[in-house]
Amino acid sequence: MSRNIVLAAAQLGPIQKAEGRDVAVGRMVRLMEKAHQRGVNVVVFPELALTTFFPRWYEEDIAVADHWYETSMPSNATAPLFEAAKKYGIGMHLGYAEKTPDGRRFNTAIYVHPTGEIVLKYRKVHLPGHKEFDPIRKVQHLEKRYFEVGDLGFPVIRAPIAGTEANIGMLICNDRRWPEAWRVLGLQQVEVVMLGYNTPSLNMDNRGFEAHHLRVEHSHLSVRSGCYQNSCFGVATAKGGTEDGHELFGHSIIVNPQGEIMAQATSWGDELITAECNLDDTKLGRSTIFNFAAHRRTEAYGRILEQTGSVAPATWTPKG
Amino acid sequence: MSRNIVLAAAQLGPIQKAEGRDVAVGRMVRLMEKAHQRGVNVVVFPELALTTFFPRWYEEDIAVADHWYETSMPSNATAPLFEAAKKYGIGMHLGYAEKTPDGRRFNTAIYVHPTGEIVLKYRKVHLPGHKEFDPIRKVQHLEKRYFEVGDLGFPVIRAPIAGTEANIGMLICNDRRWPEAWRVLGLQQVEVVMLGYNTPSLNMDNRGFEAHHLRVEHSHLSVRSGCYQNSCFGVATAKGGTEDGHELFGHSIIVNPQGEIMAQATSWGDELITAECNLDDTKLGRSTIFNFAAHRRTEAYGRILEQTGSVAPATWTPKG
Repeated sequence: MSRNIVLAAAQLGPIQKAEGRDVAVGRMVRLMEKAHQRGVNVVVFPELALTTFFPRWYEEDIAVADHWYETSMPSNATAPLFEAAKKYGIGMHLGYAEKTPDGRRFNTAIYVHPTGEIVLKYRKVHLPGHKEFDPIRKVQHLEKRYFEVGDLGFPVIRAPIAGTEANIGMLICNDRRWPEAWRVLGLQQVEVVMLGYNTPSLNMDNRGFEAHHLRVEHSHLSVRSGCYQNSCFGVATAKGGTEDGHELFGHSIIVNPQGEIMAQATSWGDELITAECNLDDTKLGRSTIFNFAAHRRTEAYGRILEQTGSVAPATWTPKG
Repeated sequence: MSRNIVLAAAQLGPIQKAEGRDVAVGRMVRLMEKAHQRGVNVVVFPELALTTFFPRWYEEDIAVADHWYETSMPSNATAPLFEAAKKYGIGMHLGYAEKTPDGRRFNTAIYVHPTGEIVLKYRKVHLPGHKEFDPIRKVQHLEKRYFEVGDLGFPVIRAPIAGTEANIGMLICNDRRWPEAWRVLGLQQVEVVMLGYNTPSLNMDNRGFEAHHLRVEHSHLSVRSGCYQNSCFGVATAKGGTEDGHELFGHSIIVNPQGEIMAQATSWGDELITAECNLDDTKLGRSTIFNFAAHRRTEAYGRILEQTGSVAPATWTPKG
């Protein structure tokens, strides 16, 4: 049985604050049409794909920001995406802000089967930024204000895709920099990691020298090492371009289990990149150098769970 | 107080099976002399720096291989290294095969202060390869036969170096591919990771397609992501060249906390590469994007300790 599937990152250009979901959804449907023409089986849209990246604005009363959240999925606004997935027989990964019936808020992603059924839901665990207004920052990054930490862990499920089955998992944006997140997926034999992001070209933290020219490289380094060290494919899809005056760096990539970039977006707008991926290419690493059962030494990893923050080491002083 | 120190990777060319420790030590002393001329504060020698990489040969009776191990450190054979360290006021990292008085065998590294005192000892945790003769392999890789798994964890200590103090830790060879190992060091605020390796240019596992041309890239990817994600410097020192007919890929590097390569060896022989490193460059990452206390979510990392090997995920089937 062939285990070749065609994966796509459907990068979005900026979505301005004034634009409604219909504008974004219309663009996404056009990317789905293009994906169909390109023989794609799975399309990965970015994090918070339906709106501008609203955590850059502070609201004292979070309820004022409620209009950025989805309270149902699908909804009237997102129905055309589900219809396109069904029409073209394409699986779809979608990131959005979720508000639950009991009022909890999450940065969420789902994977939707072509039937329109939701196969897998993930809620972002590694929320970057801060909770309160930060007067030092030039631009706020209030994910810790607008979202709770995800409560679903890092789930992996085996889903039917294009005549085969693939073990799929998800990360969202900042999660990709945390090797713990990749490893929890790897320990569940993930074969395809779907990952959306909104990452500014400039860090506005304003607390020290930041190598702005390395920000794309840091993103790619994290995705590539995550894929290599867990023997999986990764589809990392950006929003890019200047959104409400703030530049997002784009550079969506598809990466293979050797950590190689198979495809890369080179625009800052809506752009579909594709790669044909043989899922059996995940087997070599898993059975040799990254055969976890043979080589991992959990007895030496205790601090990873026992500590959250770092601790200073003891000091050695010479006797001589 | 300036926290600039000059680090060096002292790459060694091959050491043939027939060559005694005196040959290797003589070459290493010359590299120490060169380090002195280049204003170096710390020299990092490779894994198993005193002999050929003997785990490529099978011995049914391990005792026959005893002559590859050190039973004391320093010893008559290694005394010239300690003397050179003292003479030049240089700290020294040295990898060697250790046999303890009670007969246990480890793949070990030490960091030696210029007084000749041993500051820190590490015993390799992630032993690659296999324990028994493998008839499928073209070349054996018997580290699991010749060494026990290290029993010292991943220790970090704060040591005086060149008028300042640095938090130092160590990895050995295959350890560098395991993000858990880097993270345990990062959780102890490591600033400099010293790391020696002997890595063949060709994988002789012979069990599937291996991208030989990516082997250097995989090594660099692992070291660079480890440094970036733990906000530390890394000095990764190879043995390179054709050792007893087997090619080792060299490409020693020094990496900064941004994951950038600051210096790289480009020969396959004895070669000293150096970089001036400001230890305060470790602070930015630690206090912002990789502020562990603010951002790590240990409640989601359970599998990292609870499981050694991977487990298959559940299968989803469409209802529609």
